Amino acid sequence: MYRESIKVLDCTIRDGGLVNRHKFDHEFVRRSYEGSSKAGVDYFEIGYINSSNLFSPSEFGPWKFCSQEDIRRVTDGVENGAKISVMADVGRVEMDHVPPADKSAYDMVRVASYVKGVDKAIALANQFHDMGYETCINLMALSRDQGPELDEAFDQVERESKAIAVYLVDSFGSLYQEDIDNLVKRARKYIKKELGFHGHNNQQLAFSNTIQAIIQGVNYLDASVYGMGRAAGNCTLELLLGFLKNPKFDIRPVLDLIAADYIPLRAKHEWGYIIPHMIVGQLNLHPQEAIDVRKGDQAENYRAFYEKMVSAGLD
Amino acid sequence: MYRESIKVLDCTIRDGGLVNRHKFDHEFVRRSYEGSSKAGVDYFEIGYINSSNLFSPSEFGPWKFCSQEDIRRVTDGVENGAKISVMADVGRVEMDHVPPADKSAYDMVRVASYVKGVDKAIALANQFHDMGYETCINLMALSRDQGPELDEAFDQVERESKAIAVYLVDSFGSLYQEDIDNLVKRARKYIKKELGFHGHNNQQLAFSNTIQAIIQGVNYLDASVYGMGRAAGNCTLELLLGFLKNPKFDIRPVLDLIAADYIPLRAKHEWGYIIPHMIVGQLNLHPQEAIDVRKGDQAENYRAFYEKMVSAGLD
Repeated sequence: MYRESIKVLDCTIRDGGLVNRHKFDHEFVRRSYEGSSKAGVDYFEIGYINSSNLFSPSEFGPWKFCSQEDIRRVTDGVENGAKISVMADVGRVEMDHVPPADKSAYDMVRVASYVKGVDKAIALANQFHDMGYETCINLMALSRDQGPELDEAFDQVERESKAIAVYLVDSFGSLYQEDIDNLVKRARKYIKKELGFHGHNNQQLAFSNTIQAIIQGVNYLDASVYGMGRAAGNCTLELLLGFLKNPKFDIRPVLDLIAADYIPLRAKHEWGYIIPHMIVGQLNLHPQEAIDVRKGDQAENYRAFYEKMVSAGLD
Repeated sequence: MYRESIKVLDCTIRDGGLVNRHKFDHEFVRRSYEGSSKAGVDYFEIGYINSSNLFSPSEFGPWKFCSQEDIRRVTDGVENGAKISVMADVGRVEMDHVPPADKSAYDMVRVASYVKGVDKAIALANQFHDMGYETCINLMALSRDQGPELDEAFDQVERESKAIAVYLVDSFGSLYQEDIDNLVKRARKYIKKELGFHGHNNQQLAFSNTIQAIIQGVNYLDASVYGMGRAAGNCTLELLLGFLKNPKFDIRPVLDLIAADYIPLRAKHEWGYIIPHMIVGQLNLHPQEAIDVRKGDQAENYRAFYEKMVSAGLD
């Protein structure tokens, strides 16, 4: 018996874009969109809507900006396509370039925010809501921000935002299944809206934590093809779709995408279970230092990195 | 607060031996033994004690046979060394070559068995017990054998065997955390002995299932360096030791082993999260077909493999 209220969001191109500076070519993204749509995915998150005044289009691929034209180029003509989601960061969007939802190539806008920035995130998400978009608020780094400000943020998103779902984001890949239980129960004290979960796979727990979230009644679930995403990546879409019982989901198109596109891509860009990423997850630290060490000549000097990170955690 | 009764068994060389036909050279195994011992591991499982009349020593490395001499060559002189464990298969051991425990290079013998073979497994384990060895019985493929014969087997190992622990083995890497809860509770209806858990990582659940087993009171835990083990491999030792709170555990020596020995080895032999292994785990099937397909020219034809395995599951 399946839970019809479960929605799967494929965040491959958006979170995976953090691995390759959003440089997926249009044909690649179109194949991914077609495959995920055939697999029964509900939302396809295609990138960020950043202002091109803040980031240079010569340094980043199109999915850092997500122009209406770029999105239409990869979605036009795809039958039964998943809804399109984009991510908006506070202070990086030019609202006068955003068309109303009924004229837009995207359907949903997710605003990601640390707990301390929740006021601005709510305000931004509500602007999009008022233009007709579905919105979500993604509360990041919840393994770190566990103080009373978290209760306040939960209370506030429930009361003030018009989001259809509030995501609990394990940005550091640091939470264990008991933490998921506790976090969802804590959120439920305040939030009647739908809850979502976005995990990172530093400790190989993104899939099991997603299952745990499902057990706790969370309905909005992020996953990415072959786990592609920043640093250790995400819950893999193929594992999640294989787990869910709704017959509308089919992992076959995802298997095809992995074989044709994501195995070759993985040979060029790294993500997944890699020891420095495991270390920062275990120590509940931001992924940046691990990402940096993997680019230098100390990429395999795990002990030195561990000692450095243990010290960082003590500072 | 930690649970002192938890014992960690490093099964890298034994389960990893199924990847490379047990062809680890002596220096490699010695470094692994030293590293795991320094990391605080309780047992180091070094291989199988198969008769060399049944398997050819020219085809397999020393750890398929584990002669007293081979073991001593890698353990002699190691300070505070972990206890040595070997695995025995019913019908493959020559008992007259086995010395009594007080003259032996190994301390523990684990007998692995499918549920239907439990009588013979108990008899073999008890023979070792009577020679002074610690023994375990590892009940394999428990995701498949879920009928009343499982209750019988639990009852029988409790009443008839002298094992210090009964392992629940997820050979197919198919169990989810709720399955672990149910399985341990079912075992506990019959078994007062210690319980153990050995997972496979087909669905990236070996670590989370091990945590779930710990939550359920399981104290004997298998893990392997960088997850090295048959097919999708096992719960990684570095994740498990990082999770456990007992200050005797230290992941640093494991990080060194990974950097120096296991990253280079992984470039020669594959194990871990690989799509055909994911597929058989998801479908609750034996790993052999996935191992075979990875050796041929259809290694990346995931859809064809999936269709074949779905049909196999229906047969």
